[in-house]
Amino acid sequence: MKLFTYFRSTSSYRVRLALAYKQIPYNSNYVNLRTGEQNLEYKKINPFGLVPALATESGLISQSLAIVEYIEKMHPTPPLFFKDPFQQSQAMAIALAISCDIHPLNNLKVLNYLTNILKISDAEKTNWYHHWIHEGFQPIEQILQQTSGDFCIDDNISVADICLIPQVYNAHRFKVDMSTYPIITKINQKVLSLEWAKEASPEEQSDASF
Amino acid sequence: MKLFTYFRSTSSYRVRLALAYKQIPYNSNYVNLRTGEQNLEYKKINPFGLVPALATESGLISQSLAIVEYIEKMHPTPPLFFKDPFQQSQAMAIALAISCDIHPLNNLKVLNYLTNILKISDAEKTNWYHHWIHEGFQPIEQILQQTSGDFCIDDNISVADICLIPQVYNAHRFKVDMSTYPIITKINQKVLSLEWAKEASPEEQSDASF
Repeated sequence: MKLFTYFRSTSSYRVRLALAYKQIPYNSNYVNLRTGEQNLEYKKINPFGLVPALATESGLISQSLAIVEYIEKMHPTPPLFFKDPFQQSQAMAIALAISCDIHPLNNLKVLNYLTNILKISDAEKTNWYHHWIHEGFQPIEQILQQTSGDFCIDDNISVADICLIPQVYNAHRFKVDMSTYPIITKINQKVLSLEWAKEASPEEQSDASF
Repeated sequence: MKLFTYFRSTSSYRVRLALAYKQIPYNSNYVNLRTGEQNLEYKKINPFGLVPALATESGLISQSLAIVEYIEKMHPTPPLFFKDPFQQSQAMAIALAISCDIHPLNNLKVLNYLTNILKISDAEKTNWYHHWIHEGFQPIEQILQQTSGDFCIDDNISVADICLIPQVYNAHRFKVDMSTYPIITKINQKVLSLEWAKEASPEEQSDASF
């Protein structure tokens, strides 16, 4: 399998974490979002022009959570999904709150629109960014009080953690005050201490440049 | 089961379609997003302050796609998910492209932020709205050329259609030019002609007010 990825893309980071957790070998194909490679040849492969995308024997899969679901079915062990439908719904709700309510508002193409079309200032952009992180992290922190153990749902790594860790990475990158999120912070530290998680980090990617 | 819903919420509409397709009885609990009910008592039940949410015997489930996945497991027939992992990934990619790449940019709280905080004009807001619909619908239309039959994936209703129909409803509401999306338009008409889909439509809800 071949993963189209960019080191700083948080949705690519989700898939890298899933592949690393399950120890599935893959090749990386780097798409540089900063230089706009996603809008050139790559768009013929993936009409969405987004990373990640996974090239499989059956064809291309786009959208990080569609990829994670596919990986889960093809390589069910160790699991990232719960067998119990309610527990799975709680993990998926956290994964989707991050993927639908936080990340899309703060990704590169939206920030570019705000800057280039709506001409907002750097300060307004920072406020926008921080606003949507807090809007998402506040209820997630509250929910984790009920659901978490070592990880988002009890002591099991799940799709929720796979989405949380990249979002925390981005929050740190944009200097978001994380002091009111002790549980999120604790889970993030715990996951990042695990060997497989290190392989997936932005810093460890061959296309990383800071 | 009790569904917290608002007639015009496209993510509530997704869940209503899923429940109607599977003919699962439920009670509706209306949360008026226009008057801000989601930020009052309701927030004690659902910290995200969003609809839809499904109250089950096990507890509350938020996020429309987490709810649809739960419903699919509890009531697998008729199916909204495919057994074949690759086909399911194609359906889920379309569902997520709508849920993550279009809808979050155009929902009420984001439009309110653009208007109230960033003080953009009505014309700029309309452009913003249309821009993200086209950004999402263009690649979806292209992908549907390969995947669609009567519905998004072959001739089977799936989670992709459940997400597409509400997004088309919203596109019409905001007067988006749909002339370059013949396949999306055809699928939308086909689904809306089915009796169960009518039950789920915004117009048919008890809290509808236009």
